[in-house]
Amino acid sequence: MTLTRKTVTELLREFRSPAPTPGGGSAAALAGAVGASLLAMVAGLPKPRAATDEGLRSLRDAGERCTALATALETLVDRDSEAYDMVVSAYRLPKGTDDEKAARARGIQDALRAAIAAPLEVMRACAAGLACGPVLQAQGNVNASSDVQVGLELLRAGLRGARVNVETNLGGVKDQAYSAEVAAEVARLSESGAADVPSVSS
Amino acid sequence: MTLTRKTVTELLREFRSPAPTPGGGSAAALAGAVGASLLAMVAGLPKPRAATDEGLRSLRDAGERCTALATALETLVDRDSEAYDMVVSAYRLPKGTDDEKAARARGIQDALRAAIAAPLEVMRACAAGLACGPVLQAQGNVNASSDVQVGLELLRAGLRGARVNVETNLGGVKDQAYSAEVAAEVARLSESGAADVPSVSS
Repeated sequence: MTLTRKTVTELLREFRSPAPTPGGGSAAALAGAVGASLLAMVAGLPKPRAATDEGLRSLRDAGERCTALATALETLVDRDSEAYDMVVSAYRLPKGTDDEKAARARGIQDALRAAIAAPLEVMRACAAGLACGPVLQAQGNVNASSDVQVGLELLRAGLRGARVNVETNLGGVKDQAYSAEVAAEVARLSESGAADVPSVSS
Repeated sequence: MTLTRKTVTELLREFRSPAPTPGGGSAAALAGAVGASLLAMVAGLPKPRAATDEGLRSLRDAGERCTALATALETLVDRDSEAYDMVVSAYRLPKGTDDEKAARARGIQDALRAAIAAPLEVMRACAAGLACGPVLQAQGNVNASSDVQVGLELLRAGLRGARVNVETNLGGVKDQAYSAEVAAEVARLSESGAADVPSVSS
């Protein structure tokens, strides 16, 4: 059974259980999915601030984009946990002979790449959601400003939470060229995310 | 049907729908519930860093506290939407006669207080969860550091998101003494939350 087919109460109970999954990676994807959904909601509200055809079109485009991102992030809730389970399984492979050791090492490296790909995809989706913020704030229904702000807070938490997961798994990767490439994208996505979020001062 | 009895997929669809609830207030409570659940999970993992009876006790206490906070925040997902629905209903009360106008004004003020109480409670719970961060980071299983970090990011998003909702509703309140009291607590909670979160640089 996929995580997102469970009730919210059940999923929260699973997050609390000491089983290795679901963990922070799935939680970050879920935060992003809720954030993108709130932005999609605001884009669809009647009485938008948008008063021109161009404004209405950019609002509609942002809404479609956030709906697609929310759906992608929902899928990533499960994908992250599946990838993490693969890492755990790979570490449990036998390591008695040299052949077994080599197969286990390859298995771990392959699993780590999957466990990096999922949160990296979460980061990309959250950054793309954050980039819709300015359009929603300028063109969306004025009474839903607080929903936009909460949505952006959640997308930022998703971006940052996914980053922690990418970096944790990157620590075990042997391929230096791949690591450098991922690290560069992480830095780029974090920066774009930070720039687009008008945070609530606290 | 309460929101948390829906599947995650259904709840995300409701966040995306243009209906007024669920909105940002429920989303903030949900973010906090996931964050507190992750911290509770880490507290319950085998092989904690804690090596003394005192360390183990403080870890167990933090785990029990986060479990209770997660359950409270789960309840607040629904309470926030119910309170917001009350505000919408109060604004729709008839205002033909002076008596109706007076009754409507009272109804709005009462509903606004409920719609402030719910996110204020979310702020308190998120701040209390954030305060458990140092114990979990010092005493929890070292391999779950990323889960602690994601949990703290989500609790902070919950705290900030709830603050936006408190402040939006506070804008309509007439009672100045009550407003000042709430504003002071919001400032205090925001500060304690910000101090306890070792954020991921981005």
